[in-house]
Formats: sequence, C-alpha cells, structure tokens
Amino acid sequence: MVKVAVVGATGYTGEELVELLLRNPEVEITSLTGIVEKESDFSLLYPRFGKKISLICKNLDVAEVAKKSDIVFLALPHTVSMKFAPEFLKKGKKVIDLSADYRLPSDVYEKWYGTKHVDADNLKTAVYGLPELNRKNIKSAAFVANPGCFPTSVILGLLPVIKTVSQKDKAIIVDSKTGVTGAGRKGLVSLSFGELDENLRAYKVNEHQHMPEMKHILSGVSGKDIKLNFVPHLMPIRRGIFSTIYISSEGLDSAEKIYEAYKDTYKNEPFVRLRPMGSMPELSDVRGTNFCDIGIKLAGGMLVIVAVIDNLVKGASGQAVQNMNIMYGLDERLGLV
Amino acid sequence: MVKVAVVGATGYTGEELVELLLRNPEVEITSLTGIVEKESDFSLLYPRFGKKISLICKNLDVAEVAKKSDIVFLALPHTVSMKFAPEFLKKGKKVIDLSADYRLPSDVYEKWYGTKHVDADNLKTAVYGLPELNRKNIKSAAFVANPGCFPTSVILGLLPVIKTVSQKDKAIIVDSKTGVTGAGRKGLVSLSFGELDENLRAYKVNEHQHMPEMKHILSGVSGKDIKLNFVPHLMPIRRGIFSTIYISSEGLDSAEKIYEAYKDTYKNEPFVRLRPMGSMPELSDVRGTNFCDIGIKLAGGMLVIVAVIDNLVKGASGQAVQNMNIMYGLDERLGLV
Amino acid sequence: MVKVAVVGATGYTGEELVELLLRNPEVEITSLTGIVEKESDFSLLYPRFGKKISLICKNLDVAEVAKKSDIVFLALPHTVSMKFAPEFLKKGKKVIDLSADYRLPSDVYEKWYGTKHVDADNLKTAVYGLPELNRKNIKSAAFVANPGCFPTSVILGLLPVIKTVSQKDKAIIVDSKTGVTGAGRKGLVSLSFGELDENLRAYKVNEHQHMPEMKHILSGVSGKDIKLNFVPHLMPIRRGIFSTIYISSEGLDSAEKIYEAYKDTYKNEPFVRLRPMGSMPELSDVRGTNFCDIGIKLAGGMLVIVAVIDNLVKGASGQAVQNMNIMYGLDERLGLV
Amino acid sequence: MVKVAVVGATGYTGEELVELLLRNPEVEITSLTGIVEKESDFSLLYPRFGKKISLICKNLDVAEVAKKSDIVFLALPHTVSMKFAPEFLKKGKKVIDLSADYRLPSDVYEKWYGTKHVDADNLKTAVYGLPELNRKNIKSAAFVANPGCFPTSVILGLLPVIKTVSQKDKAIIVDSKTGVTGAGRKGLVSLSFGELDENLRAYKVNEHQHMPEMKHILSGVSGKDIKLNFVPHLMPIRRGIFSTIYISSEGLDSAEKIYEAYKDTYKNEPFVRLRPMGSMPELSDVRGTNFCDIGIKLAGGMLVIVAVIDNLVKGASGQAVQNMNIMYGLDERLGLV
Repeated sequence: MVKVAVVGATGYTGEELVELLLRNPEVEITSLTGIVEKESDFSLLYPRFGKKISLICKNLDVAEVAKKSDIVFLALPHTVSMKFAPEFLKKGKKVIDLSADYRLPSDVYEKWYGTKHVDADNLKTAVYGLPELNRKNIKSAAFVANPGCFPTSVILGLLPVIKTVSQKDKAIIVDSKTGVTGAGRKGLVSLSFGELDENLRAYKVNEHQHMPEMKHILSGVSGKDIKLNFVPHLMPIRRGIFSTIYISSEGLDSAEKIYEAYKDTYKNEPFVRLRPMGSMPELSDVRGTNFCDIGIKLAGGMLVIVAVIDNLVKGASGQAVQNMNIMYGLDERLGLV
Repeated sequence: MVKVAVVGATGYTGEELVELLLRNPEVEITSLTGIVEKESDFSLLYPRFGKKISLICKNLDVAEVAKKSDIVFLALPHTVSMKFAPEFLKKGKKVIDLSADYRLPSDVYEKWYGTKHVDADNLKTAVYGLPELNRKNIKSAAFVANPGCFPTSVILGLLPVIKTVSQKDKAIIVDSKTGVTGAGRKGLVSLSFGELDENLRAYKVNEHQHMPEMKHILSGVSGKDIKLNFVPHLMPIRRGIFSTIYISSEGLDSAEKIYEAYKDTYKNEPFVRLRPMGSMPELSDVRGTNFCDIGIKLAGGMLVIVAVIDNLVKGASGQAVQNMNIMYGLDERLGLV
Repeated sequence: MVKVAVVGATGYTGEELVELLLRNPEVEITSLTGIVEKESDFSLLYPRFGKKISLICKNLDVAEVAKKSDIVFLALPHTVSMKFAPEFLKKGKKVIDLSADYRLPSDVYEKWYGTKHVDADNLKTAVYGLPELNRKNIKSAAFVANPGCFPTSVILGLLPVIKTVSQKDKAIIVDSKTGVTGAGRKGLVSLSFGELDENLRAYKVNEHQHMPEMKHILSGVSGKDIKLNFVPHLMPIRRGIFSTIYISSEGLDSAEKIYEAYKDTYKNEPFVRLRPMGSMPELSDVRGTNFCDIGIKLAGGMLVIVAVIDNLVKGASGQAVQNMNIMYGLDERLGLV
Repeated sequence: MVKVAVVGATGYTGEELVELLLRNPEVEITSLTGIVEKESDFSLLYPRFGKKISLICKNLDVAEVAKKSDIVFLALPHTVSMKFAPEFLKKGKKVIDLSADYRLPSDVYEKWYGTKHVDADNLKTAVYGLPELNRKNIKSAAFVANPGCFPTSVILGLLPVIKTVSQKDKAIIVDSKTGVTGAGRKGLVSLSFGELDENLRAYKVNEHQHMPEMKHILSGVSGKDIKLNFVPHLMPIRRGIFSTIYISSEGLDSAEKIYEAYKDTYKNEPFVRLRPMGSMPELSDVRGTNFCDIGIKLAGGMLVIVAVIDNLVKGASGQAVQNMNIMYGLDERLGLV
C-alpha cells in the first residue's frame, strides 16, 4: 500500500484527487491538509465524502505530513508549491506537484508568472508528467511536475504531427473552451452563476500562462521553435476542456499518413482514444474520466484537430494518479477506469 | 416626461430597471448612481448599454440626484434604503424603494432583519406596491415599498382563495424555487458557477426573511392570522421564481368555485394570467416579462397552486416600473410589454 | 466472477449499469443488448466506453443471453420487461428488473400503467429491491424489482417516521425536483435543451405513476393507508432527484426523538447518510454516487425532510448493482464507492 | 401602420418575430400561420403571448395572408421558402425571407443545400439583408433575403479588414460557438437536454452550409476569392453566437490603422458596437438584443476578432425587423432597443 498525502485537499483538484485515490486499491490516504478555519473531518467540510473517508483535514505541518506518507500530492496554487516541494523532497518523499511551478525553465516561468523562482535545484530534476511523452522518465522520477489542463489537451492533440508541422514553421491556432472548475473554487463575481450561465467569454487572448508551457514542450519534441496562438474561452459547464486546433495542411503529409501517425502514437496508450478519421469527439465522451479523446479532419486546406479531456481528471488529478501508478510500478489504470 | 433617478444602478435589479426604463417612452433617465471606483459612463461599466444610454454612473450625492429627478428608485440593499429614503422624501421627491425596509411593521422588521428601523415616520406612510392589491393607494402615493420577489409570487398565487383558507386555519405550504440572480451580484463561493451548476439547494428552511412579508400581507387581506411554511430552493437558472403552493382542500369551495374566484380576481389585471383549470405554467412562459402566470389543480384532497414570475421583472424592477406608471397616471403597461 | 447480461444497454440506465459493472471486480459483463440498427461494438455506439469494454451490442436473443449469463439486468421500458422476465426466470437465471412492472400489485399496476399485467406468477415472488427495507429478502431472491427513482428518495426520507405519521393519518406533501435523464433518452421537443434550459416545469401534478409505488410501500411498512401528495418538477440539470417532504409536526415525537429514529435506522446503512439536525444536503453531495443523503428540520409546526439521490445511481443502476452484490453475498459496496 | 404577416410563427425565429413586432409601434400583426393540428389562438399554443396578442394561428393560405398584409415574413425552413416567396411577390407584397433560399447564387445553393432552386427569377432580385452592407438597396427593395446567423457575426466581424486581408490571400479561420436554438425547435435525441447539457460538440467541420454564404458575401466585398475555414460548435446555452476569427497579421496594417478602420466602419451603425482595443465582448452583452459587439486584438502575429450576436435577434428576427424598418423608411431602431 502506498501511503499518500494530499496537500491542498480543499480545492477542486484536491477534492478530485481524494475521490480518485479512494478508488485505488493500492493506496492508503494518510494525510489531508488545506487552509481550514477549524481542523475537522474531511467529510464535514465536504459531505460528499461521508461514509467514504474519515480523516481530519489539517492545516499543513510539513514534518507531520512527511512522517505519515510515501508520496505527497501538492494541489496548491502556483508560487506556493515551490515553497513546500523542496521540503518534502529533502525528507526523501516522492512529490507530484499539480501547480505550474516546475513545468517551465525559470526565465520563462518568471516572465509569465511574474515572480521569482525560488527552487532552481528541483526545477532541474522535475520530470514533466505527461505519460504519453515521458513515461520512462516518470517511472524513475522522485519529482513530477503534473502538466496544465490546457497543455495536456493541446500537446496530446499535436504530438503525432508536431515534427512535420514544425518543419513548415506554420503558426498553429488553438481555440480552447474550458469548464469553470478550471479557474478553481473562488468567490468572484466574474465566476458567479449569474454572470456565467448562458454566457461565453474569451480571456487572456494570446497571453494565457499555459501558452508558453505548450510551446516549450512542443518545441522540445519537434526540435524547432513552435509558433502557437492560444485563445481560451470560458463556457457555462463545470468540467471539461475542448481544444480545436487548426494547422494549414500545406506541406503536411497526406490525410492517410497523418491518421496513421495518430494511430501509431496512441495505439498502446491506455488513456488516449482516437476517433475514426473525420469524426470528432464530444466533451461528454470524457466527462469524469481520465481519457483524452482525439479526432482529426483534413478539409479545405486545413488540418483540424479536436482534443477533449476532463480538466479535473486527465487535466489534473487523474493524470497525477496515473503518474503515481507509473512511479510505483502499478497498473497505470488503477483507480482510473 | 418623467425624470427618473436610479440609485444603486450597478446591481442586477438596478441594471434591469435601466433596461426597462429605456423602453418607456414617457421616461427620461436623468441620474444613475452606484458604488463605483471611478465615475464613468454606464455603458463602460456594463457594455450591454452601449449605444442605448450615455450617462455617467456616479457615487450617490442626494442633493444632486434630487435636483435632477421627479422620482427616485432605490435599488439598494436592505438597511441601506432607510438611510436615504427620508432624505429624498423630505425634498419632495416620489420614491419607490426596492429593498425590504418599508414592507413590514417595525417590530417584525427588526426581528427578521436583525437591525433597528430608523425611519418610523415614512414606514407608516409607505404603500405596499402590489398593484393587484393596492392599485388605488399606489395611485396617490408618494412613497411605495416594492414587494419582495418570493412574496409577489406567493401573494398573487393565494389572493383569490386566502379568505376561504384562513377561515379553516390550515397551514399552507409554499415550496419555492428561485434563480440565482435573486441573491444579487456577489462574489461568493456558494454562488459560483462551479458550486451551483447541476445542483439544487434548500436554504433558510422555514426561516427566510420573506416569510413574514407573505404572512403579514396575507393576514391583512384575510383578516386572520395566516400560518404558512416556506422553503426556498436555489436552482441552476439565472432568472425566475417558481412557487408551488399546497393547501388542504378540506373545507374549501368546489373546484369550479375556486377557479371562478381566480378568474374574477385577475380578469382585468394586465400582468396576471390564469391557465386553464388543471394546467400549470412553466417558468419560461414569464422569462423576461412582467407577468405572473398562475395554474391551479384540485386533486387528492389538495389544492395545488403554481405561480411563476421573473424575479428581476415582476419580482422587482418591472413591478417598480408598473408602480411608477400607476403613480403618474400613465398606461400601466408602458415599457413593460 | 458473476456473469452479467445487460438487456437494454442503450438507454441512460443501461449505460450507467455498464459503467458501474465495469468497476466491480467480481463481475464479468458477458452480454449487452439493445434495439440497434446494426450490431456493433458498444464503444462504437457510445465512444465513452472505448478502451474500457469490447463487446458487440446485439438485438435481444433470450436464449443466447441466458446461456452466457448468471444474472440478467432488464433496463427496459415498463410493459416490455414483463414480456422477457418470465423467460429468463424459467431458464433459472437471476433477474433484476429496473422497470416498474413488478413493483405494484397487479390491480394498482393496471390502473396506473394503463395495461394488463401479463405475468402474475412472478409478480408474486418479486422482491422489492430497496436494501434498506428488504435486505434479507433480497439476499435470497432470484428476482428483484428495482425501485423507482422518486420512490427511492421518498421512501428513504420517510422510513424512520412513517409509523408515527400514519397513526396521525395526516396527508404528507412531497415536492420533488428531478434531472432530465429521469425521462430517458428521447427525441422530444419537450425534452430539448432549447425548451428546458433556464426553465422549470411541474408535471403530472398528483397523478404521477410513482405515487402509488410510494403509497404502497409506505403503507406496507406502517400498517396503515398512507395519504400522500406528490408533485414532480423537471429541472434543467442532467442527474439527480431532490425531494422536499412536508409533514405536520402535530402529534409527532419531539425533534430529538425523531432525529434519533433517523440515526438508528441508518447508522449501519452503507449508502444512506444523515446530515446534522437542521442541516440539509445539496444535490451535488450525491452526484454520481449511490448515496441517499437526508436532512431534517422541525420548524413552524412542520417536519421538513430533504432526501437527495442521483436518479441514475441510487435511483436506478447503482441500486441494482447494490442488489446484485447482496444477492451474491458480495460486499454490498463493491464497485459503488 | 404596417400590416405584417408572419408565416411560420411556431418556430423559434417565428416566435421571436412576433415578440419583436409587438414592441414596434408602427406595426400591426395581421396574420400568423404555422403547421398546426388545430387552428387556435396563438397564446394557447404559446402561453407566453397571453394578454399580449390575440390572433388565431392558422395553416397557411397564401391568398388570405396576402389580402391582410403589406409585408410577409417567411420564417420557414430552407427549400420551403422558395415555394411561397414567388406567390406573395406576385401579389405585390413585400417579402423578407429568413431562410437560406435566396442568399446564394443558384449553383452554390444547389451544391450546399442538395436541391434544385426553383425560383431563379426572384433569386436575382433578392437583396441580401445585411443593413451594414446593403442599407441603400434594402431601402428600395421589395424582397430581402435575411442573412444567416453565423454569417451575420462573421461578416460584420470581418467587414472592415476584408479588403486588406484578401490582398494577402491568407486563409481565415473562424471558430464559432452557437446556442441550441439555432438548430430550431426539434425533437431529436441529439438536441435533448440530457445530451447537450455539460457538453460541447463540433459539427460539420469545414462543411457547414453557412460557410459558402460567408465566402460569397466577403468575396463580393473584397473583389477577390476569400478562403475561409469554418468550424461551428454547439454549446449548452439557449441563445447566442460567439465567433472567434483568426487572421495572420503578416502584411496587414498596423494595429492602430486596423482599429481605425473598425471605428470608421461602424461609428454610425445603430446596432454594431466596437469594444476598446484589446477588449473582447462577452455573449451576455448582446443577449436578447439586436446588437453585434466586436472586439479585436493584435498579438503574437495574429489578428484575433471576436464578434457576438444573439442568434434569434441580430442573427434572424431582429435583423428582419431592422430590414423592415429600413424598407418602410421608419427609424431603424424601432422596436429593437
């Protein structure tokens, strides 16, 4: 049994982590922490956990958490994770960080997150936790930086063609639509039901902090500097990311070859599913699951790729559990299907 | 042209007031105020008003607002209205107050709103602004207390039978479902899309502050002390109140007579519509309108009444405009159909 | 391993059954049937099952299904189930029927479902599959009639007090709100998104076919004829039933004693959770789970009970799996938490 | 008073037409027709019109409708309109057709709508009813082809830059998101609440029948053959179209000049509003209105344009009323603000 701590259990990703870990027969949750007014049973804070788990949710005490656990999930806001990750690593704990703190080179991070990076050492050793890209490295990693939700959908959508594309040096257009839980559990007028229901909003047009993450990873894969335009939209749904990706087909392979590349790349992947050529997945196909579903279509001189995930599962907590399974040599799908 | 000021124009009811007043050909909006960081054009704060109105939304200056206007709508939180209403009235302005401050006797108010009433004088003269009940008094009033949203639906639903009911002294059960805008434009986790979408929540079970308003008005009409149980529910919709009302039919008139009473009461009412016997209105029938739609059915020893309104229109701003039309001798429906 | 067939796998409850059975480590799904134009892999019909199950969804052939399975779940419309249940039972298969065909005495059934009952024999032996009421009988049953969704929430909400109530002979009022999947997967204008979003609708006021089921079971428990008024409402959410139940507190026990009765009744129940006195569950607490959450409050001369479930899980497929676990002596919670 | 007939009053656009025409003080609705089982008062079919209009909704009788009206709105499905338009025109009536039947050259129409065009004569004289493009021609027209909903948003979004763009011969990418009423009032499983809520779906990827309409009109304006990729998405909202348009900024004017072009083009337009540079409109800004709101941003080598409308108002019925106002020399905004 792997002894697991969830640090930051009171946010949407933290809650989802607890949910998924409870379904994993090789896991024992030993510690839950969050910023709580009064330390009390997790099921009193979140009644949906009643008769499922009985554990006091405490304010974070690094030493105590470390003592009880083999691996620590950090479900903290960015800039907060990098204050605690080094402490757990120093104590020999495995760490999976769900924040953005260890996904980018420090200069890029500092530019986009507007703050100094304070843990350069661990930044170097952190493995980017996208199993479809880095499974081997994850297997032997002590420290995994779990990918962002938008990047997970976009990178998986582009992986099979990115080398070809990059040689043509085209600008890729990514039009993503996200559910509201991606913004976290927050008391903001702009996230209230009255403002969002029956509404749609584009935000951070070509300046969202997940854009450099996509560029960095995809450029690494392709060996070239990938240009990418990214416009996220906030939809009136709770969960899910739907990324529609546009690439000029000029200079690309034939439709058949492209489709073969997708089939090849993902045929053995437990959590990526490819739709028949020309058919597109819907968001409901992946709701509540750890799957990324992908559809592609070549028409009108354009390759259109649709990649959909549940932002709280494959886009965050599910992928984190998948990474944990890999790190411990367990069946990668444990607790996830 | 009636010169109109909206005090508190930045909340949901304030915005709706501006929307409705703009459609009224006998109205000129002369003043908009709200708590704003920077005084700026209303259409910069709320782009939906672009090319519809050009007026600076200012912080409240009573003297200035009074100078420009004949009538003042107070779309303020309760306990705030009673600080400003007396000032406008003293200056000879007509006032329609959309808060709860002038709807109840002071002792009841103080019990349910937990604060001392500071304007006993005007409380005595305020007319409860339900046209279907008080049209004559409203006509000659200088000061109108606009009804609450839940009470509007419940009182209109019960008006035709309340005298009969009260003689039997039965407890009435009111199960109401409301849209989220009824709670105002607020940045609270509990009102966020992530928490409310796909959810339903009962709140303030038999202790909502609108319950004494219903009891007070209905007891006044019937001449007896009306017992009433009221459970509001928060639904994942933006606008609308749907009240399902249950009364034991023991001792009531026959179905035909009851239905006649409803027809009689509302046949000349411009904003109340009665459905055929046994047929129930849907919320969508009144969305965006000033109508209250009512359906009744007698079955299983029970009279079931459904009354639906749009909480921001008949439940607040539309009814306020209806009251203004009456106060100025205008066609009651002006700007409302 | 229990070999399981799902007959009617293409509706909402059928799909949910497959989902839940896949999580049950003691189950092997051996057969999926539905009305399909072309027999094809279930994951082609429902892409969300890709890489989770690979099985051809066939049109029903009783002999073939019976040969492959130990137990058959009938997720069929009412009036259809009673044509197939006897055939499977004759072949010695265990059967769990999710339709309404075996929940009521034949005379009541015929009155409310408007059709002759054609399987009087098995109707006599069918066990009403509410584990909290009938666990022992379910354990030894070969044939279980799975309860309706509304009745599950209402009966569980009333079970601890129904004996007391009946002695007072009061009319109980049940105001239920349901998600849209309860109506099944259907192409009707009245169930379209354009009609239901931002809408609320009462239907079958005091004449819904689930009302006699509640009355029948509750009368059986209490030993008296229970009077009950039931008004269901269709809400713009996908899943969930929220029942608000009103009982006059006249003649009932004290609040403390009533609360004790609830605690007592459900303390060992794995899937019923009681909220602290006066606190009410929200629908989101049970979304996607097999739990029924209950809150009670005594105020204003009224006992108000709120009982919430997910209509597709505890209200249908989850309860069916719970029944199967009981019938096979498995851990009742297997695959359900 | 203009005497107006609505043919096809029972669909979403027909209903919205009635709603808007009722607010127009220069209009008298003289005739409503639809495919109805029993001819009955329109407010019995749609209770939301109770106490607003009293008129029997009849099955279509061309002679009778023509006799009563000056102008006829055809809110019919495509391929149906072209059967009736010639008859009304022959009788000297003005006609506004909301279908797609008269928007395209016959060869393009036949290719995309899969049917022969049967009214070549009137196709030649029909004026494309986008006031921002064709106001003068509309003024003198007897027959107007009202634009499609997607094309309205896309053409208005591109009008100020399309000449510049075309000179560079770049492919434009249009990623549109639409509410569900755009698909009409239909009883289809794929449009049911259970399937669409919490879902998002791309459809007709680069093969939607509105794409050639955009291309045709924009090519006409620019004098060159415009390449355009169009992917519509179906969102879980009732009303609204949100089009995100991407153009490579290579070879375009400077940001300032582009913004000036937008300001210039729309400064006198009553129903187009431009947001400050870099700021994007939300769908809620135009909900229920006849406005098209536009935002533009130049970043990362890309011009991103967002254009939003209410599909039932500016995208259909509101624009039709705007056209009628123009045809009759009325204030263009009558009944629309």
